[in-house]
Formats: sequence, structure tokens, C-alpha cells
Amino acid sequence: MRSIQVSLAERSYPILIQEGLLGQCDALRALASGRQVAIVTDETVGPLYEPRLRAGLEQEAASLLTVTLPAGETHKTWESLNRIFDALLQARFDRGCLIVALGGGVVGDMAGFAAAVYQRGVDFVQVPTTLLALVDSSVGGKTAINHPAGKNMIGSFHQPRLVLADLDTLRSLPARELSAGLAEVIKHGAIADPDYLDAVDRDMAALRACDPAAMAQAVARSCEIKADVVARDEREGGVRAILNFGHTFGHAIEAGLGFGQWLHGEAVGAGMVQAADLSCRLGLLPRAAAQRLDAVIERAGLPVRAPQWSYEHWLALMSVDKKAEQGAPRFVVLEGIGRASLRRVPEAALRETLAGQA
Amino acid sequence: MRSIQVSLAERSYPILIQEGLLGQCDALRALASGRQVAIVTDETVGPLYEPRLRAGLEQEAASLLTVTLPAGETHKTWESLNRIFDALLQARFDRGCLIVALGGGVVGDMAGFAAAVYQRGVDFVQVPTTLLALVDSSVGGKTAINHPAGKNMIGSFHQPRLVLADLDTLRSLPARELSAGLAEVIKHGAIADPDYLDAVDRDMAALRACDPAAMAQAVARSCEIKADVVARDEREGGVRAILNFGHTFGHAIEAGLGFGQWLHGEAVGAGMVQAADLSCRLGLLPRAAAQRLDAVIERAGLPVRAPQWSYEHWLALMSVDKKAEQGAPRFVVLEGIGRASLRRVPEAALRETLAGQA
Repeated sequence: MRSIQVSLAERSYPILIQEGLLGQCDALRALASGRQVAIVTDETVGPLYEPRLRAGLEQEAASLLTVTLPAGETHKTWESLNRIFDALLQARFDRGCLIVALGGGVVGDMAGFAAAVYQRGVDFVQVPTTLLALVDSSVGGKTAINHPAGKNMIGSFHQPRLVLADLDTLRSLPARELSAGLAEVIKHGAIADPDYLDAVDRDMAALRACDPAAMAQAVARSCEIKADVVARDEREGGVRAILNFGHTFGHAIEAGLGFGQWLHGEAVGAGMVQAADLSCRLGLLPRAAAQRLDAVIERAGLPVRAPQWSYEHWLALMSVDKKAEQGAPRFVVLEGIGRASLRRVPEAALRETLAGQA
Repeated sequence: MRSIQVSLAERSYPILIQEGLLGQCDALRALASGRQVAIVTDETVGPLYEPRLRAGLEQEAASLLTVTLPAGETHKTWESLNRIFDALLQARFDRGCLIVALGGGVVGDMAGFAAAVYQRGVDFVQVPTTLLALVDSSVGGKTAINHPAGKNMIGSFHQPRLVLADLDTLRSLPARELSAGLAEVIKHGAIADPDYLDAVDRDMAALRACDPAAMAQAVARSCEIKADVVARDEREGGVRAILNFGHTFGHAIEAGLGFGQWLHGEAVGAGMVQAADLSCRLGLLPRAAAQRLDAVIERAGLPVRAPQWSYEHWLALMSVDKKAEQGAPRFVVLEGIGRASLRRVPEAALRETLAGQA
């Protein structure tokens, strides 16, 4: 079993990576022992994996309940969150309880936020069942719900006690969602490790076929890179911003099309192409390097062309982004593959990138 | 000007205590300088003090908006919280913004919780305008909203950057609310400092008349005691529980009568009488000491008799309390005036206390 440690002083936690972990994880059993335990899942993932997870916990937990939420980003709302609170309060769960998030990023974000604020904070465990959740939201403790005016506008930093990455769960993922997860894998190579980007490119066919060895390698390295960045900047005051490479554009795409039209990873795929293009226009990145990145994104099965909107529409979509400061958006750019930084950009370059003129 | 430091490592902050502080506080101006600033207040307090606070900030803030919430505990809900989010998002406030809570405990809890979760956490300042908020909720960083199933069930620990205690604002308090605030003042003496309890008793007439010297002394000492306890236990894992003296009973009274019927401090007043009685029945506190405490509570203008309910009804009201563990409530008891601890209690003693047999 691979184990990646996310180092955050007294909030450090391990990510355990293995096939078949769901029903037989000693670390999870130890955490659940004698406690009130709530599994939070959704209508898609629950039927597939909740019975196996539940069977592994039934002997250990003092009591065990399951909250099944409607699936999808459009349900990442206060109403869904409140269904978790209702269930916990009805079952009289106290602040010693444990919440286990079983599902993709939406479930993880909501269950994590519920854990962050239920009785001012209880323990939680992430069991991510999508590649995106595995390599992205399971590291760093970001939790949130959406607001009609913007994605992830209401949330907390709340670290899990443990993350279980059961690679078997990735086999049930639709190809489109697997590709969306690869967007973050590619991002980690692009911002931090050119050799890793090469390896991902080389293994692309195996990754898209969900080959266990290739997948375990990618999940471990991606989690390592993200954990390293997060450990240097837990509350996102500085270097952590580089993890948003492609995300200012990506979030605008998601908001502009309506959340849920494109998958988050798809929007980030096209967003990374835009961010790389912007980096070229600023003279920071050779055009050949951007083209190489575009090719990897395309081979992952991701869109490389953002929607065509006016400059003003893009700006409106981007300016409530959380990376904005006093209304003026900044962008994560590449200064070569493997090296990222956050910069304010001149309007002219941004206009050209948004106009999509290659 | 008195200044009490709440020491919590990188989250430490000062409480400034003075008359006339509202419109002329350099520390607040420095914090607000060049930032997006939102004043959150309610329909009762806003008309009295918001213009003065606003005038002091208008020159400094990059932008300034005021959110006025409906007043009262019954409005400490998600709906009110969401009005804050709506206003912040509509004005495109980013994560560098500052929220200033102007009002009593309800406004402080809601504005603080909004600050805790808006864009995963922004800075906030407390300007408490009730004695209760001054000596209780302004120290310790507890923020929350209510849920139909229980008070303060959804919340965060989020420390303010600064607390402004303008003693002038206490002059507009109804006598009933002043008394409710004195409940917490008395509590601080009861759990931590017998000399302070004596002083409060001696100064009771001056305190109820809002005499500035007596009030400054009490606010400072109460904040010191609470700050000392909180500094030893920021996340309420241990010793901080003693601050809940009288509160398990008090919360049950509030819930049983319907939130808002008795003021929080009134319920805590009667709750402290019950908790002292329980301490006597456990052989921990001399009856004379409990009677002395009862007399101080009564002289503060607070109720000393809890409502008469069946044992089962009391239990039901207490068991979703956050201090409960696995459904079995524990109680903060006195082992003499000035010394408190948290204990599970035998059913017989609890039954007698709840039956109200002196």
C-alpha cells in the first residue's frame, strides 16, 4: 500500500492508496471505533459502494447512518448541506462523531463543509471515488458549497483525518469523468514537475484504461505535489495559488455555461490552454512548450477550446472569482513547464487570449 | 483606555475598552484602511450607532456597505446569514475584505460565522453593544447560527482581529438586557475568582446603573478571566467547558420555552442556581455558598427559579446539547466558589435538582 503524508503540523493526515481498500481498512476502523459515524454519499455512488464501506464499519461504530444526497454540482447547495445537518441532529450525533465522505468532489466538499461547521467542527474522512476528487479535493482541506453568484463562495478549510484512495472505485467512472480527473494530473505536472508531465503523457493510454499500476503512480505523485504546495501554504495566502493554474478561466467557463454543463476538469483543461497561451503572450513561456501542453490535454480527451464570448462577458464571469483582489483578477502563468507564478496581466494580452487568436 | 489581550498564538487579538470609542478608534481605522468593509448590524442597533461607526470608517475604507438584519435570536438563521452573503457577493467583496459586527451576541455570532465561511474565511472585528456580547461572545471566537433542532448547532471557531468595547453603547440597553449580561459576569466570578464575585456583588447597584468606572472594571476582569480560559483551550476540548457553568440547564430552558422567550442571560441565571444546587447534592459545594451565589444572581435582577418540567422533558431538552457525549449529558459543577469542573452526575441527584426541591 502506498501512503502519502500531508504535513500540516497537528492537522497532518495520511492518504492511503490501494485497490480494494474500501471494505478493509484498519486505519478507518480504528478511527470509527466506538463513535457515531455518518456516511455521506450521493445517489450515483451510494448504490455502488456504500454497502461495502458500511460492512467494514458496522462492527466498529457505536452507531452508523447514511445520508444520500442528490448527485451533481447543481446540488452543492445549502439545501443539500442542511439534509446532512437534519440527519445528524435527528440521530443526536454529538461533536465526537465522525463523518465519512464517500463520492466525488461534490460529496467531499459538502460532507467536509458539514464536518467543518456541525457543532463548530467534527472529524471527517474522505473516501474519494473519482480521479478528480482523489488528486485534487482530497488534499488541502478545502470544503465549500456554491452560491447563485459564484462557485465555492461559502466554505472552510477543514482537514480530513484520513483519505482512503481505493483505486477499484475508479473502474466505474465514465470515460468523460476519468478525463476530467486527468486535467488536474496534467496540471500538477505543468506547474511543478516536467518529468511527471512526460510520464503522464507516456502513460496516457494506460491511465485512460484505468491500469492499476499507472493509476497508483499518478495518484501518488499528484497527491505528493499538491501536498507539498499545501504544506507550504495551508490557508492559501501565497504559493498555493499556483494550484489554480487554468482555474480562473475554468471557473468562468463553468459559470458562463451554467454549472454542470462542462465537468470541472473539462473547464480546467480548456482553461489551462488559455493560461498557457497567456503565458506565451507575456513572453514567459515558449510557444512550443504551450503547444506541447495543449497536446497532452487533448490526448487526455479534454476540450482545448474555450467557448467564444466577448471580453466584457469573460471579465464579468471572472471578477467574482476568489483569486480576484479589489475586483482586478490575477492569473497563474507558467514560466516554463514545471514553474508557475501568480501575476496581474496587462489588458491587451488578456484580450488576445480571450479572443482565442493563436 | 484599557486593553485586554486574548492570547492565541498567531490569532491573538486585543479587546479595547473605553467610552466613546465607536467613532474614533485608530486601531480599527488602521485595519480598515484601503479595504472593502462591511458593517453588519440589526434593526435595533443600526439606527443608534451605525452612522457614528460609518463616519469613522468612511475616509479609510476602499468601499463600505452596511447589512442590516432583523433583530433577535429567532432570526439567527441561515436566511439571515445568506442576506450577508448576498450583499457581499453583489458588491463583489473579495477575500481581502473586512466584516465589522455591530450589535449584540446574535449579530456577532452571525457576522462572525459569515466571516468564517465567506470565501473560506475573511477578517472580522467585533463591536459588541450589549453587556452580554462584551463579556461573553467577544472573547473566544465562537460563531454560529441556530437550527430548528438546537441552538448554535452550525458554526465555527473564528477569532476576530480586534474587539471594540465602547461602554457608551451600554447606556441604551434596557435594564432587562443589562441584567442578562450580568449573568455572565457573575458566572466568571463563580467559576474562577471569588474576590471578583465579591466585588460584583458590592458594585451591583453601580453596575445596574451602568456606572462607567464599575462597568469598565467588570468588563475588563470578565474578559480577562474568559481570555485566560480560552487561551488554555481554544477549541473547547477541555478546561473551556467550565465556561458552560449554568449553560446546560440554561440552554434547555431557552429551548423548552422557545428561543427568545427568556433572554440567554436570564436562562443562565436560573441555570446557575440549578448547577449550584446540583453541586451541593453531589457534596462538592456547601449549601451556604450556593445560597450566596443565588442571592447575587437575584440582586442582578435575574430569575432564580427554572420552569417546572418533568424529568423526561428536561432530559430530552438537554440531550442534543453540544456538551453531551454519546447522548449522556455532563454538567459543570462548582467545587467551591471560584473552582469549577465538568462531571457526569448520577441520575438521582439530577432528578432532585430538576424537581426543584431545595
